[in-house]
Amino acid sequence: MPNIAVLPGDCIGPEIMNAALEIFKAAQQVTNTNYTIQSYPFGGAAIDAVGEPLPASTLAGAKAADAVLLAAIGGPKWNDAKERPEAGLLKIRKSLNLFANIRPTKITPGMVQYSPLKPDIAKNTDFVIVRELTSGIYFGQPRRLGTADAVDTSHYTEAEIKRILEVAFTMAQSRQKHVTVLDKANVLATSKLWRQVAATVAPNYPDVTMDFEYVDAAAMKIVSNPTQFDVIATSNLFGDILSDEAAAITGSIGTIPSESRGIAGPNLYEPIHGSAPDIAGKGIANPIAMINSVVMMLTNTFHDTQTAGVIQNALNQTIEAGTLTPDFGGNATTTSMTTAIIKAI
Amino acid sequence: MPNIAVLPGDCIGPEIMNAALEIFKAAQQVTNTNYTIQSYPFGGAAIDAVGEPLPASTLAGAKAADAVLLAAIGGPKWNDAKERPEAGLLKIRKSLNLFANIRPTKITPGMVQYSPLKPDIAKNTDFVIVRELTSGIYFGQPRRLGTADAVDTSHYTEAEIKRILEVAFTMAQSRQKHVTVLDKANVLATSKLWRQVAATVAPNYPDVTMDFEYVDAAAMKIVSNPTQFDVIATSNLFGDILSDEAAAITGSIGTIPSESRGIAGPNLYEPIHGSAPDIAGKGIANPIAMINSVVMMLTNTFHDTQTAGVIQNALNQTIEAGTLTPDFGGNATTTSMTTAIIKAI
Ligand SMILES: CC(C)[C@H](C(=O)O)[C@@H](O)C(=O)O
Ligand SMILES: CC(C)[C@H](C(=O)O)[C@@H](O)C(=O)O
Repeated sequence: MPNIAVLPGDCIGPEIMNAALEIFKAAQQVTNTNYTIQSYPFGGAAIDAVGEPLPASTLAGAKAADAVLLAAIGGPKWNDAKERPEAGLLKIRKSLNLFANIRPTKITPGMVQYSPLKPDIAKNTDFVIVRELTSGIYFGQPRRLGTADAVDTSHYTEAEIKRILEVAFTMAQSRQKHVTVLDKANVLATSKLWRQVAATVAPNYPDVTMDFEYVDAAAMKIVSNPTQFDVIATSNLFGDILSDEAAAITGSIGTIPSESRGIAGPNLYEPIHGSAPDIAGKGIANPIAMINSVVMMLTNTFHDTQTAGVIQNALNQTIEAGTLTPDFGGNATTTSMTTAIIKAI
Repeated sequence: MPNIAVLPGDCIGPEIMNAALEIFKAAQQVTNTNYTIQSYPFGGAAIDAVGEPLPASTLAGAKAADAVLLAAIGGPKWNDAKERPEAGLLKIRKSLNLFANIRPTKITPGMVQYSPLKPDIAKNTDFVIVRELTSGIYFGQPRRLGTADAVDTSHYTEAEIKRILEVAFTMAQSRQKHVTVLDKANVLATSKLWRQVAATVAPNYPDVTMDFEYVDAAAMKIVSNPTQFDVIATSNLFGDILSDEAAAITGSIGTIPSESRGIAGPNLYEPIHGSAPDIAGKGIANPIAMINSVVMMLTNTFHDTQTAGVIQNALNQTIEAGTLTPDFGGNATTTSMTTAIIKAI
């Protein structure tokens, strides 16, 4: 039986996870499928429970699972914790070897109205950012914090760059067949290495074209001309910043799921949004991105397009009927939206 | 007599510099002022002339000047140069101690139409990014490029952070009295140091409020809610990326000047846009940002608001009359626009 490790995390995390799991359960009844779900403490919740953000039992459970479903972690409550919730996130990425973070940015005709961009610029936007997730300045050593100075190190190996570029090129083959590598090669040595490696990887994908773009120029173009991109491949830090910028142009960060892909072990699926401490406990958290994360997991890991389709259709119907949480201008609660989706199922 | 070192640089650089200097000369006649201008090779032009992007004579001239006016450098021609044009830019920043790069982002009512953002989001945007310019990952050691791996180092000292924050807080005092420090303190040691130092600097400016924002969250907000910012203070790399994103939301990167402020020596003024190799030599380069750089220099270094005003008014008149280069939807050339501005003077 397929086995899913669930990490509800903090603040609105458990609220949206519960919603998505109830919907998932209802869909399983329709398609006669059966997924085993096991929940583990993670992030701030785990700090509160056992004093560390990624307990060994949580990691073991995640490792043994076929897929990991994460809601969101963090919050001001743990600002002064010895180890913060975010440390757990970095550790699970590293331990599960989740080296490729994949974030789609798509503005469908129906979503153009939510974009902060003018319709003519927003429409037809459809690109994917493939972000390196287990190296770069997030993990490089030495890292040192003193009172007089501090140091961070960005380190990349050829092998790390090669495998993430291969994910990007493979993805481009089933899309518009173009990869843009984002870097700062006019300043950084690691960026120059990315260009060197890209020059050796590209010839293996003769059907895919490639270009290079400076990260600062790309930060402009995501706003001024986002339709020009197909697949963007970039480092951990640049991917962090630009994928959030990319999410913002959809006007719908409450809807976007992401996949973090490992090597042999499970993939991890999560909304791109955070734990929203400001609205935690109010019952108004938007569950759409969490639901879309379940759909993405069913499609990409379990190839269960049937159950995914049932959820997707019910979600679309509910959205079209205008049952939306306040962040989308509606007055539904997390619970009433969940009930409406289950009804549509 | 006030003394200005002029660095025309590469591609469209000399074209827009010539335009701006002709206009500047015409304005001096009106206000009866007299600035000495000395031009030096820099960037690719200097590589071609003497084999290095920042010749000693250029640096000496810049050091001796009261202000430095730079157009733009770089181009594909020098991609394989031993030392690239950009290396000259980093060197002159470091040698002149230009630690504070100041970039205004303002969307006036008349400019809302050019913004890629919907008018309701764009209107009233008015913030300044204060970017640290002589440290961080741009200059940290070790920096190493091999074939198997590569390393970059980000290093910040308390003193470097303190002085840039002081610029930001002082600037906020004559604006909306709010500073936002952008960092990635949930991951980076250097960012944690920025927060530590900010906590010691802020109390010296009791009239200014401060908050912290993660750089990825800020990359979202610049697109979704740009009016919330007043003064943004950030590191060299984050400032590079976010100030370009900020420029993009104006829809008018062809208009924005910037100031790089030193300690005792001259400030440097330059357009935020690049050298635009694709349109070099075509005579259609937009000179507005270069002209605005002259205005910014006259105002901030020479406190010559009279000459600055003469140029500004003539420029505004010309823009309002619709005399604009193709990037702004007009059909003026650099020369015809320059002639129109001089006529308006
Ligand atoms: C919470 C933080 C450490 C994390 C990151 O920077 O990777 C987040 O911003 C993300 O993008 O998943
Ligand atoms: C040309 C490049 C080295 C430079 C930088 O990254 O600082 C440019 O992007 C800038 O912002 O002035």
